[in-house]
Amino acid sequence: MQKHFTDRMIEAIKKKGTPICVGLDPRLKQIPEFIREKAFKAEENLKNPLRAAAEAIIEFNKGIIDGVADLVPVVKPQVAFYEIFGFEGMRAYQETLDYAHEKGLITIADVKRNDIGSTAEAYAKAYLGETAVEEESMRVFDADSVTVNAYLGLDGVAPFIKVATEDGKGLFILVKTSNKSSADLQDLAVLGDVVKGGKKDALPLYEVMGYYVDSWGADSVGDSGYSNVGAVVGATFPEQAKALRAIMPGVYFLVPGYGAQGGGAADVKPCFNDDGLGAIVNSSRGITFAYEKDESRGPEAYADAAREAVIAMKEDLAKVL
Amino acid sequence: MQKHFTDRMIEAIKKKGTPICVGLDPRLKQIPEFIREKAFKAEENLKNPLRAAAEAIIEFNKGIIDGVADLVPVVKPQVAFYEIFGFEGMRAYQETLDYAHEKGLITIADVKRNDIGSTAEAYAKAYLGETAVEEESMRVFDADSVTVNAYLGLDGVAPFIKVATEDGKGLFILVKTSNKSSADLQDLAVLGDVVKGGKKDALPLYEVMGYYVDSWGADSVGDSGYSNVGAVVGATFPEQAKALRAIMPGVYFLVPGYGAQGGGAADVKPCFNDDGLGAIVNSSRGITFAYEKDESRGPEAYADAAREAVIAMKEDLAKVL
Repeated sequence: MQKHFTDRMIEAIKKKGTPICVGLDPRLKQIPEFIREKAFKAEENLKNPLRAAAEAIIEFNKGIIDGVADLVPVVKPQVAFYEIFGFEGMRAYQETLDYAHEKGLITIADVKRNDIGSTAEAYAKAYLGETAVEEESMRVFDADSVTVNAYLGLDGVAPFIKVATEDGKGLFILVKTSNKSSADLQDLAVLGDVVKGGKKDALPLYEVMGYYVDSWGADSVGDSGYSNVGAVVGATFPEQAKALRAIMPGVYFLVPGYGAQGGGAADVKPCFNDDGLGAIVNSSRGITFAYEKDESRGPEAYADAAREAVIAMKEDLAKVL
Repeated sequence: MQKHFTDRMIEAIKKKGTPICVGLDPRLKQIPEFIREKAFKAEENLKNPLRAAAEAIIEFNKGIIDGVADLVPVVKPQVAFYEIFGFEGMRAYQETLDYAHEKGLITIADVKRNDIGSTAEAYAKAYLGETAVEEESMRVFDADSVTVNAYLGLDGVAPFIKVATEDGKGLFILVKTSNKSSADLQDLAVLGDVVKGGKKDALPLYEVMGYYVDSWGADSVGDSGYSNVGAVVGATFPEQAKALRAIMPGVYFLVPGYGAQGGGAADVKPCFNDDGLGAIVNSSRGITFAYEKDESRGPEAYADAAREAVIAMKEDLAKVL
């Protein structure tokens, strides 16, 4: 069995010297034309545009991964941008995870899956564990971790924790997301002593979720002192992040919302513990499509542009860490 | 453009004379051996067990659909049981949706997807709308409706409503799920006047979600008086269902938890309005794998067993409707 997920991730963060996660959200229209043209003109794809789209995505992602693999510890492909191309898109998702793995990167399958019992277990096996097919067992979407939505409570989370823990893998549960209307539910004031260690006073729902995440991961803490059950906490709400950091000191945060969504280095600082660990900061468009804003070079240099965007982000984060 | 989703569904319910939804959750191990053997021994699948699994699932599902298509209005394939077989599984998912469609059935893609902005839009296009590929547009997973988890608030729901409304399609938002630990979050007591028309007193989170769903769907009501934004309300909590029915009279309920999960006809009754409409009741294992409990015939008659299970369920529901 491989080592504890979060221990592995921290090792990678220390080795690369930065807690950056590159989001691989390949919007087809934004993939450089020379890549798309090659894929769509290939003989075998002429009658199958979805296959061509998948091939373009795979080539684009491989370029990005090659460009950033020695600089960053983690990549996070967002599955919606693959599912939109059907099963061919899901093939591209699988190949992207495999290629990132080959290049020594930790992967987060950003799938936000959620269900109960044997259904949740099927998702967990699909992304973290093994699929049983007659007498064989095989890995399908072989990610190191997944994002999970816990609206269904512990029943929806326990199967992920079980599969993750058996296999040195992890999960990140949505706690306070980076979007404006996250307040609709997540900021509701909840009454009473609802969680172990919770307070009697009303507290916002995202804090209740924080207490849950902390308790759900208490049995799967690694040598680093961090659990393999992490939390998604948006960069756009630094005050709330500070409160959550205090509620769950041993929980690793996955922090979306840096860059394109408006969060800066100062905004993500509260997501970290004093040891400089505790958070991984994601940027997607700002890195993968950096070439669009770089007029000094052509789209052929998209991977170089991504690489430079990572270096700039690394410097930006270093100011506050 | 086709008609409003819920109007189409109600038409189908009236035509078939029952509000049954058959859940297509094809656990490979439970698929009759003669189907699996054929798929795994096929020349083209010998070196590709995931492809063989997908072929077995497709054949099994087609048999079930053929067996029940004249009796029920709706089928609901649960995507986790397809994703576990990777992209080949997703091909089976697509073919299952297409076949159900050919047979005149309304489909619910039970995917519980959730995200924000352009990501949520990508999911909505993947399952309800069209995927743009260079100059073309095409349908990928062509379902009539999807299930959605709204922990992220309106930002995570609006893109689904937009795509659904443009295309005569619908969605069902998780409100009160059928599992025991749904209480962890969904039963939390929430303070204050949080929703338009809400009360000042504390109310459970699932009721707040009910008010939200009611308001989110207010602009997309069909001729039937029902919105295309539905709610998932478990059969296992009849008291809570009664309260939710009162909160959102114009919202259609998708009701899981009947049969294998313990809910009976009396339990689902509160999900209906006085007009006998307002809910669609799902049964999965109890129908698709009915053959396992029927010793009078062999597994070759699995579709007949499913058909008889549907007839029994129809009679059971008729007692209370």
